[in-house]
Parts: sequence; structure tokens; C-alpha cells
Amino acid sequence: MKDCVVRFLPDEKEARVPAGETLLKAAEAAGVYVNSVCGGDGLCGKCRLIIREGEVKSRPTALLDRDEIRNGYVLACESQVLGDLRVEIPPETRLTGRPAFTGEEALRFGRVSPLRKGKVYAFDPLSRKIFLSLPPANMADNLSDLDRVYREVARQRSDPVMQTGLATVRMLSGLLRGGNFEVTATLGQRGKTVEVVQFEPGNTSTRNYGVAVDIGTTTIVANLLDLASGEVASRQATYNSQIRFGEDVITRILYAQEEPDGREKLHDSVVTDINDLINAMVEESGISLHDVTYVVAAGNTTMIHILHDLEIANIRKDPYIPAASTVPVIRAAEAGLSINGRGLLCCLPGVGAFVGSDVTADVICAGMDESEELSLLFDLGTNGEVVLGNADWLICCSASAGPAFEGGGLKCGIRATDGAIERVAVNLEGKLAYKVIGKSRPRGICGSGLIDLAAELFKTGWLDRAGRFVRETANSRVREGENGPELIVVPAEKTATGREITVSEGDLAIFIRSKGAIYTAAEALLNRVGCSFQQVKRVYISGGFGNYVDVGNAIAIGLLPDLPLDRFHFIGNGSLNGSRMCLASREALEAAEAVASRMTYFDLSTDAKFMGDFTSSLFLPHTDMEKFPSVAKMLKMSPSVTAKGRRE
Amino acid sequence: MKDCVVRFLPDEKEARVPAGETLLKAAEAAGVYVNSVCGGDGLCGKCRLIIREGEVKSRPTALLDRDEIRNGYVLACESQVLGDLRVEIPPETRLTGRPAFTGEEALRFGRVSPLRKGKVYAFDPLSRKIFLSLPPANMADNLSDLDRVYREVARQRSDPVMQTGLATVRMLSGLLRGGNFEVTATLGQRGKTVEVVQFEPGNTSTRNYGVAVDIGTTTIVANLLDLASGEVASRQATYNSQIRFGEDVITRILYAQEEPDGREKLHDSVVTDINDLINAMVEESGISLHDVTYVVAAGNTTMIHILHDLEIANIRKDPYIPAASTVPVIRAAEAGLSINGRGLLCCLPGVGAFVGSDVTADVICAGMDESEELSLLFDLGTNGEVVLGNADWLICCSASAGPAFEGGGLKCGIRATDGAIERVAVNLEGKLAYKVIGKSRPRGICGSGLIDLAAELFKTGWLDRAGRFVRETANSRVREGENGPELIVVPAEKTATGREITVSEGDLAIFIRSKGAIYTAAEALLNRVGCSFQQVKRVYISGGFGNYVDVGNAIAIGLLPDLPLDRFHFIGNGSLNGSRMCLASREALEAAEAVASRMTYFDLSTDAKFMGDFTSSLFLPHTDMEKFPSVAKMLKMSPSVTAKGRRE
Repeated sequence: MKDCVVRFLPDEKEARVPAGETLLKAAEAAGVYVNSVCGGDGLCGKCRLIIREGEVKSRPTALLDRDEIRNGYVLACESQVLGDLRVEIPPETRLTGRPAFTGEEALRFGRVSPLRKGKVYAFDPLSRKIFLSLPPANMADNLSDLDRVYREVARQRSDPVMQTGLATVRMLSGLLRGGNFEVTATLGQRGKTVEVVQFEPGNTSTRNYGVAVDIGTTTIVANLLDLASGEVASRQATYNSQIRFGEDVITRILYAQEEPDGREKLHDSVVTDINDLINAMVEESGISLHDVTYVVAAGNTTMIHILHDLEIANIRKDPYIPAASTVPVIRAAEAGLSINGRGLLCCLPGVGAFVGSDVTADVICAGMDESEELSLLFDLGTNGEVVLGNADWLICCSASAGPAFEGGGLKCGIRATDGAIERVAVNLEGKLAYKVIGKSRPRGICGSGLIDLAAELFKTGWLDRAGRFVRETANSRVREGENGPELIVVPAEKTATGREITVSEGDLAIFIRSKGAIYTAAEALLNRVGCSFQQVKRVYISGGFGNYVDVGNAIAIGLLPDLPLDRFHFIGNGSLNGSRMCLASREALEAAEAVASRMTYFDLSTDAKFMGDFTSSLFLPHTDMEKFPSVAKMLKMSPSVTAKGRRE
Repeated sequence: MKDCVVRFLPDEKEARVPAGETLLKAAEAAGVYVNSVCGGDGLCGKCRLIIREGEVKSRPTALLDRDEIRNGYVLACESQVLGDLRVEIPPETRLTGRPAFTGEEALRFGRVSPLRKGKVYAFDPLSRKIFLSLPPANMADNLSDLDRVYREVARQRSDPVMQTGLATVRMLSGLLRGGNFEVTATLGQRGKTVEVVQFEPGNTSTRNYGVAVDIGTTTIVANLLDLASGEVASRQATYNSQIRFGEDVITRILYAQEEPDGREKLHDSVVTDINDLINAMVEESGISLHDVTYVVAAGNTTMIHILHDLEIANIRKDPYIPAASTVPVIRAAEAGLSINGRGLLCCLPGVGAFVGSDVTADVICAGMDESEELSLLFDLGTNGEVVLGNADWLICCSASAGPAFEGGGLKCGIRATDGAIERVAVNLEGKLAYKVIGKSRPRGICGSGLIDLAAELFKTGWLDRAGRFVRETANSRVREGENGPELIVVPAEKTATGREITVSEGDLAIFIRSKGAIYTAAEALLNRVGCSFQQVKRVYISGGFGNYVDVGNAIAIGLLPDLPLDRFHFIGNGSLNGSRMCLASREALEAAEAVASRMTYFDLSTDAKFMGDFTSSLFLPHTDMEKFPSVAKMLKMSPSVTAKGRRE
């Protein structure tokens, strides 16, 4: 059987597959992400592609309409490759799942991701090892050992303000004379100054690693970056084990205040988590902890305070004041982190109590601070922050979305972990398909699954605009539960636990409050500056949960604004990616400092219009359908939904 | 009996004394230093003053000639005050003893000493406590605690690069809220950056002290400076207890290399000494160690290395390389010093292995770096360094004078401590008068005493130009000892030990080598730049021993160049005074950094002419009498000296 070359646009990635293979498999072989919920069963209709050149053989499907078929749309799982192809992945097929992770390390370093339009920051990591082959001292050139080093450093680099610790000076003379005046100096950025962190004998300049870490309320994710090459050497993630002290930030602050040694326990917990991640990465990479000389961390302000064991009580008390928005660079060991004993820890600068360094990192990662175009950023994590602005100004707020998107507060809600239903599709025949993370049977439903479920139920007419089940339509799966009407998502016999997975109208009400809070926060920022959603040219989505969202569905329920899909861009874990960018580039860190200092925090509680707008948002997608014209249009296309779904 | 007002010029100090009192007592009452060896017995003729206005009653004396008497010269001890007086102290009467110490704290801070022509540095100490009365946070002004502090600091000062340690940030939130947002920040200079060293509740801005310390090879001297007022609160000095490991620097370096834990013992020794001084000053001033936030130290390069426990072995091995000429600022506790736990230690910058920060301090103290006039500086300590230059250039060398001036290597030589003969006069009748430090009987003779002794014996014809006793003249006191001819300075029955105090020709030979080394070093610097002594407009004398030298006698023996007395200026302990100036003024520290970086070290061993010139200097005052015209003139005035002293 002949081989065919399938080239995917716009990434220009390709795969060679035998004729007869499905397009879905070809995409997988090319390393190209294609949306799919049903896993290739032709049920969900998510894997839409457009054939630009070449021929495929497609099975008939009711999931595409005539116009679409005429324009070259096919379902990837239902189409066999017949020859060489050029295939386009339309935004709705790529704008879900994990696309941002695929190319994350390429972001803004030399190779710019196709999504990124911003500046390429020079590779100039916060910790630099430079090899110094010094001319041995003689009577005519009798500089002191330290001045000899400084002179050579000045020849190689232009770091104006240098400092060196006593322990480092103490070791220098012996090293120089023990090794033919050849040493490697580790230069660590410390604010505006550069510290000679250590000297090592000989040339160790290729053995230098840094850690970028996103300290989320729910998850902690770390990258080990080879600071000589700029490549990511290892990745690790874990749940934030502070969860045992409370799901959200406020609960943990209360814990710190009320429990004996509470703050210390929180601090120890996060330090242990990060050290575990670092150890795992170091082990995986076969390097030594001694070679890890720098850590850059970002996270919400409370997490960063806990890492440094700073006072957090004032963060939750009016007027909500952190100890420091920017914590000074310290030796990592001072915070309890186990890397090189003299290695440094830099936390990215934050804005205030409710907009932390994770959001600064998001902005840098997206490059919002450099674009003339108006951009909007949603950080969809345990809470939810929104940023609006451009190269001239930036305004941000915290959305108080609550933990619903992380599965918190919902009966069958779980985090996006093994066994979580992360994608749901409901077709016109009422068949419900879902996709589970990992290989196990489902245990519950996570945020992205909930968005899909709500959107699909709404679009197919099972759910009305108020978030109530339309019993006539959804009768087969909806029943009266203990707490009111509930939908059986997965019957007991098909779950990992042997218990049904259900979603009740009560669950949906919580969920709708969360999505409404985020949408209204963005709306409030736009109102504040007198702009409309239509003027927003780019929408960035960041955050652990954000990366798994189906943008079309998120619009359908009114979480995200109703804008053309090609304006949406995933930046992955912006907190992690921004931290890694700063670790790899002093320019990026300077940009982050500039962002944090000029970003204005807008306190939603001071906005007279906010509560009214929030109340209006507690519908699917919104009380005011003019704000969601594409959803209105779609609903009109499906009479059943228009008829039933629109009852008040 | 009526009171008379006696006013002394040029200091314009005055005293009110009863008529009939001696001028010597009046000077003492006015706090004016008047040279005197015999203590008021009319023997030494050192206490010459000039009556400018008013009347005195003087006893006849052979120690003044007719011209002098006609010009108003009197001996202070032999003249009684009869009415109000204006009395001038001529240079030869002030240029000895401790005059520099009298006004040392006035040097260059607001009140400029009459000796100083240089710039007055702004009072701006390296550690500054500033009281911050912050506007309490509210929703409209919700900066983080640290940013709130930084904002207020920026309002009060213009320190561009700030840093704050973790422990300091940790304490801030509680302090602000516990004390109505009123705190005092201690800002410590750390190279080009400023560290917020600590926060304290309330206003403690008047409780801030710093220590300036001169770490000499033989003595350690410290001042406690009130950093709020700029006043010296206390002074202490001690012998460097490292002396038990060796008299000079080279012996101690060998000790560090050869003894187990040798370097550590040296380090512990100097740290203990300094801590003892600090404790004594703190106790005397009734303050707390916590209030001492900064230490500035100067000393030779080996002493500074030992304080920091840096490698010293390479200082004595060709090509003589220190670990660091400028040791970075560290926390004082890192070096073992007990002040405020977060207080800082800054050692002034040095030039190289043999010209340390003590010499930089001298230059700053003298203001040589600012004057257009050519100046020469002698630092007469255990070794001896010489600096030549002006505002455009500075060149320095180390003279290798050896420890003779500190009493080392001589049979009856002792340091300038209680019981040391510090001044000697021999009158024309051959009567020998001496002055002892403290109230005890003499135990030995120190450097300044030796200079006086050699000069007076030489001038009165007891000693010839080769440093040999003229037996015909000095017969009564010179005898053949075990090691050749020796002079009995004090007979056994008048000493504290019951043993004679003697000086042999062998002692004098060692002493002459020392004085020759210093003179020739200065000559070599002048040769190097093509200048002569006559072009030198100001000669500064610094150093523990230097302060007790009678300049006229030092010229007579050829230690100092033969220049008019009014060109000589004592700057006291330049290392201490320069350190204190830097402690009190960032500008002064910057000047010291500039001096250290532009001062050229001239290695005398590379000077082809040096050894020949040194050999020529091993006479009294020199082989070439044209270099000492005033001495030649004086010798011609005393026929006996001309006849006997000039053989050879």
C-alpha cells in the first residue's frame, strides 16, 4: 500500500501514513492536536478539518451541513487518506485541549510560536555560568584574585553592579591556584545587581540549570530549564498538598491564623511539594542538585507569601494588603528550597492581594504588554483573573469565580485528574459521549467537562437558559434527586466507583455563577475604559483549567465573550511559561517588572454597575442575547432548542 | 589675684588663669598642645612660644638665643602670665605629640580642622535610620507594606537600588499594624546598593551608632560614632593580640600556613579584640549592641584578610596577590563581629598586597586626592607606606621599614605604652631629660623617643653621622657593652624594672636602616615622577607612631625630608580617621573607592636606583648633606658637633 504525505496547516507539520488511514490517526502521527470527544466513533463531530488539496474518502455524517461539506469540511475520524493532502485545522478544532503545551517551550525564545506576535527576548538567563580562563598573576599584572575575576567578567559581559558573598571570596584563591587560574563563575541576577553566586573549578559552564515553578492553589507545576542551552530538560507537576488545609486561598489564610503553627505548616507543605518536584526533575535528567542555581516562581499573592513564610492575615482583611507585592530575591535555601546551597530564588512581581505574579507572568507570556492591539486575558484557575489592555495601559481584576471549575462545590465535580470526564458531546439524537482523562473508568466530571456538558445540553435543548432541565427533551436521563432535578451523566455500572455520576440543577446554578463572575469581570474592565468586546482583537486563555476548555462551548454558555474563534489564543500555563521566560531572559523579567508596576488593579466591589451586570449574566449564555449573537443564531438553527430552551 | 585671659594662636583657644600662672599651665587649661619633654623643668627648651600681645615675666634661659628673645620667643614653662595675652604657638612647638587627636572629630565634617583645606563631605552615614510615618493603607491606597515603605523612603531620600532581606520583610507587616504604621528603617550602604537592614517600631532614628576601626598590626583603635549626630561617642584602643603569634605581618602569615588552624586562630584573635573594643565603647556610652548597625574597618591588606578569614598565603609569595583588594560588604556577623545581628561590615578598599585600606584612608583623611598641590604622605606604623600625588595622580609604595619604630628588634625598645620613654632632650650641658608615657618609671624607649634621642645626641655632638658614639663628648654615659658601645639612657636605679635602659650602636644601626628605608621610599616616588622634595607643598604624617614624632628631630636624623616645618601636618591615625569619615559620609567612601582604584603601586624592588639611594641614606641625616641644608646649617652653629659629628 502506498504512503501518503499529509500536511497540516497552519502549523505546517506533516506525517507519512499508509493510504486508507484516517485523518485523525494522521494528525496524531504528525503531532498535531485535533479536537475529539468520542475518540473517533463519529459521534461528537468535534474533529472537523478542511481539505485544501488532495483527496479523502469520507463516510456520510449528519454532523456537517451542506455548506460545510461544499467548503471542504470533513470529520477527521470518518475520513480516509487516499493520497497526498494539505489539510487545514480550523480554529474550533484546535481551540480546545492541550495545544499550548505542544509548543510551549518555543514561546518567544528564538522560535516564536505561531500564536505569538510579540518580541523575541534575548536568551540571557537569570543565572549564567561563565568560564574564566584568567591570565595568571605576575608582578606586572598583580590585581587581587577577585579583581582579576571582575576584570574578565567585565570583558565578557556588561553587568554594572556586582556583589560577591564572603563564602565565595573565601574559596576563590585556592580554586584559582589549584586549577591553572581557570574557574567558572555563576552570576545570579539579584534585582538590579548581579551576584557572583559561586566559583567552580574548571569549565562547568554547560552544567547550569534553573527551575521555573507555577505555585497554583490547586496544582504546582515545574520545569527544569537547561540554562546553557535554553531547552526544557524535565517537567513535573503535583497537586498542591496545602489542599489538606483548605481548598481555596481564604480557607488557608484562616487556617494559618487559627491553627497553632498554621502558617508554618502551609509553608512546609509548599516547600516540600516544590522540593519533591525538583528532586524528581533532577533525577529524571541525571543531573545534580548542585547544578540547579536558580528558581523563578509565580503564583497568586497568598501562595508566594506562604513560600516565603510572610504574614498573610492582612490579605483577607479590608483593605487587603500583602506584605510585599514583589518579594526581594533571596537565597533559595532561606525559603527552604533545596537546590545549590547558594542558589537564588526570584518570585515574579505581583500587583496586589488578589492579582499575583501568576497574572504578571500571563501578560508577559501573551505579550499583551507589547501589542498596540487591545487584548483581553482570562486566567482560569481556582479563582479567575482578567486583564485588559495593550502596550500603553493594563487594567486587571480578580473575578472571585470560586472553585467550581476545579470541581469544587459540585456533587460529582473533581479536579482534572485520572478518571475525570474532561470532554462531553451530546449529538442531535440525544446520545451523550464523553472522554475521560487517563485510561480508567470515569470517577467524576471536571471543569472543562462541565462546560461541554452544559453547552451541549443547552445547544441540544436539554437545558434551558435558566439552567433548568427541559424534562420533555431530556426525560430519559433526568430524574428527581434528593436535591431536585439531576441528570445522570454516567450510570453506576460504567463508573470506576460504582456510583452514578450526576449533575443537578443546584450544581449547574453554582457553575453558572462562576461563569457569570468571569464574564462580568471582563465586561466591567471594558466598561471601565469605555470599550466593547468587539474592540478586543486578541483573547488569551491561561491557567491549568483554561487549557482544556472548548472555546465554542465556553461562548455558548456565556463564559467567554462571543467573538470570532480566531481571536482566541491559548497560552497554556501562563504562570509557568512566563516564569520560564523570565528565568531564561533578563529582558523578560524587566518586562514583568514593568507590567506589574503599571498594571492597575480594579476592585470590582467599588463598581456600581457590577452587581446588576453579574445578575444579568446568570443565564445561558446571558439575559441579553444581543451580547451573544452567534449563540442566538445557532439556537435559531435548531428549532427544538429555540422553542424549549428559551423559556425564561 | 586678678584673672588673665590667655589666647592661643592659631587655634584661637583661650583660658582664664590667675596672674602668675605659667604659660605651660595656661596652655593646658586652654586644651592647647604645647611640646614639652622635661615636663616644665626648663631643661628641654621644647615649649617655645611667641608673645604677640601682653606681658609675661620670664626667667633667663640659655635655650633661646638673642634674636629669638628679641622676636618675642619665650619658654612656656619659664614664663608667668602678668595680664591678658595673645600667644602664638610656632610650628616646631605644635608639630609633635598628639595635636591631631585633639581636633580629630572635627576633620572635614562641617567644622574643618585648621589643618584641612579639602572638601567638607556631606554628613550622610553608611547606615541611616529614617523614621517613616506612613499613611495607613486603605482601599484607595492599597500598596503592599514593603512598597509603602519604599514609597516613603523615596520621598525622603534618593537611593536608587534598594534591597531587603527576607527576615526584614517578614517582620514588617506586624510592626506596621502594631504601631500605627510608624516604623524606623535602617538603611545600610552595601556597595552601590542600599539594604533595608531592619525595621524597628516607632521612632528610633536617634539611636543609631557605627564603629570605625583601624586594625593595625600592633594596635587596634576604634571609635563609636553616633550616626544621628555625627559625634564620636566613645574611643577605645587595644594591642592587637595577634602579636602573640608574631610581631609583623610576614611572621603571622607563616604562622597561618604552618600551624594547625593557624589562620582561624589569627581570625578569632582579631575578632575578639574588636568585639572587646565595641563592648567597652557600648558600655561606656550606655547604649545597646542592637543600636550599632555598621562597622567600617581599615588596615593593611593582611589584617583585613584575617578579619574576613580569607586566604593570606599568597600575600607573601611572589607575585604577592591578595584574595581581594576590596572585600565586599557583608553582614558583620559573618565575620564574627557582635553588633546588631543584621548590621553590616564595610572594609575600605585597598590597593594591593602591601598597600592596604589604611593607606587609602590616610589619603582621604588628608584630602590629598583633592588638592592641586603636590603632597606627600608618610604612614609611620609597624611597616611604613609613602604616598605622593595630587588631585590628578597618586603613586604609593611600601617602605619595609621594619618594626624598629614600634620598638621591635632593639634591646630596650618597647611599644609606645605606659613606661615608654617617648620624648628625649639633651641640652648643651649634656643633661639628658626624658618624658615617660603614664605615671610609672621608665621601662624602655619607644620610636618617638628613639628619634629624639638619636637627633639630640647627634645635634649635641654625642653621635656622629655614621651613628657611632663620639666617646670624647659622651664619655660619661657611653661604655663598651657586650655588643659594642652603648649609651646608658636611664641608670638601673631609676627604671621600673631595676635594669638599665641602654641604646647600643647596633640598635642605632637597625634604627638608621628603618629611617633610611622610609626617606628613600619617598625619594624613589619623587624620582619616579621627576619631582623634588622642594616641590612638595604639604607633607602629611599618619600612623600610630607618626603622631608622636618631633618633626624637627625627624628631619635632623634624615627620616623626614628637610622642608620648612609649616609644610608638615599630622593627621593622627589616618586609618581610623579616614574610616570614620567614610562611616559618616557616603561621599567620602566614594572618594576612597576612587583613590584605591587610581592609586598606582610602585614596587621599589623594581627600581634600579633604590638600593644605591638606600645605602646613601644610612647616615645622619644622609650621605649627601645638600639634601638637608637646614641640618647642615644647624650643625655649623654648634662647633663641637661640626667638628666631631662630621668625621667620615
